[in-house]
Amino acid sequence: MRFRLTIEYDGTRYCGWQIQANDDTVQARIEAVLAQLLGQPVRIKGAGRTDAGVHAQGQVAAFDAPRHLDPEELRRALNALLPSDIVVREVAEADTGFDPRRDAAVRVYEYRILNRPLRSAFHYHYAWHVPQPLNLAAMQAAARVFVGRHDFAAFRTLGTETRSTVREIYLSHWQRHGDFLIYRIEGSSFLRHMVRSMVAAMVEAGRNRMAVEAIRELLSGSDRSQTPAPAPACGLFLVEVRYPQPPAQRHP
Amino acid sequence: MRFRLTIEYDGTRYCGWQIQANDDTVQARIEAVLAQLLGQPVRIKGAGRTDAGVHAQGQVAAFDAPRHLDPEELRRALNALLPSDIVVREVAEADTGFDPRRDAAVRVYEYRILNRPLRSAFHYHYAWHVPQPLNLAAMQAAARVFVGRHDFAAFRTLGTETRSTVREIYLSHWQRHGDFLIYRIEGSSFLRHMVRSMVAAMVEAGRNRMAVEAIRELLSGSDRSQTPAPAPACGLFLVEVRYPQPPAQRHP
Repeated sequence: MRFRLTIEYDGTRYCGWQIQANDDTVQARIEAVLAQLLGQPVRIKGAGRTDAGVHAQGQVAAFDAPRHLDPEELRRALNALLPSDIVVREVAEADTGFDPRRDAAVRVYEYRILNRPLRSAFHYHYAWHVPQPLNLAAMQAAARVFVGRHDFAAFRTLGTETRSTVREIYLSHWQRHGDFLIYRIEGSSFLRHMVRSMVAAMVEAGRNRMAVEAIRELLSGSDRSQTPAPAPACGLFLVEVRYPQPPAQRHP
Repeated sequence: MRFRLTIEYDGTRYCGWQIQANDDTVQARIEAVLAQLLGQPVRIKGAGRTDAGVHAQGQVAAFDAPRHLDPEELRRALNALLPSDIVVREVAEADTGFDPRRDAAVRVYEYRILNRPLRSAFHYHYAWHVPQPLNLAAMQAAARVFVGRHDFAAFRTLGTETRSTVREIYLSHWQRHGDFLIYRIEGSSFLRHMVRSMVAAMVEAGRNRMAVEAIRELLSGSDRSQTPAPAPACGLFLVEVRYPQPPAQRHP
């Protein structure tokens, strides 16, 4: 039977989500605990590959269990064995065909900027500290440019293999919460470093060093030479992954 | 000339505030950076000795500089050299007689509890996770018992040398913020482990395992055998230290 996991993690001390030889990753930690619980190797598949230092409140992953397991008991056992910075929020039975990556309809990310002169002793792993004043109206105008169907080739990291660099963005906006600027973006799927490159470009707009028109031009061509380096990983959170139909069979 | 520093720190990776041989402490880190800036050893004195894992938003410390320094330049230099989890929020000139410990009139602490079944990947260093439901009304009633002048001998850690165990508490109350229970206490000064022992007793009241009357009795005697072990350090924050007169001479 296939299970769907909803996972929260503090990405600070991990080399990202995806399993890699010799590196400590979130996927490796969860697979190790599942193997311990089930007595055999288990491979899980995640909806999105977050990079080193990127956090998640709602990563989704799936795996096949060799026998019947009670979802609630499985959740408790996982949380008892996983490290403090990884929490399984939900466990649900899923259709045997459920693929967390392919079936995902909407991915929601948030990017947090601490925008004040003074840095913070508590938020340095969870926000990008930008001490200079930022023009929020310019950043908001830049954020609106991304909404719709566009070629994001200029916002990807080279070397990533992808069939197409066209992506659809449903929502893209900034909000101020005290000293924080929170960017929320919802889209079908994302290229590697895409959100962080977009944030970097919007911050350039907020510093009045890049015109909104220049960002619009980046979307029409694939000239990456004008794209600023990606914003730091620590500010990025994978908030939620949405699926078209209820993934679990608990409420038929 | 004497300076007053207001300091924020994430206590997670430090062995507390106070300098100790072979241990990494917040005081040691600040003294090392000051020595680097001033070219000679500097001793700072803090208002309160926070334990390992305890955090501060508003620790206050003082030191004497051998020459004139611009407070704003000093603050920038300190923050450029200090580790990410220590931030000097304010630097001000102080009276030559200013003693951050002796002169402190009010110390404000907060204690944070994450009160829900599920633990959190983000708050495990900044809150005590209590998965069981807590009776907030009982905790509030217990909190009120502490207000006023009492002998807190039953709430101290043995081995601490103190002339008197009588302390005055001006404010003591709980507030719910979503899944968090936040305790705020304001008092003249505190014994070692006092706030954490009080929190532990109030949580016992919230679990209906200790009557408010039993807490009242702890205040009248010095029988520590009924006091529960202190609550975890990670939930405690030194929020603010208040002084009777303006410490700086900037607004005479």
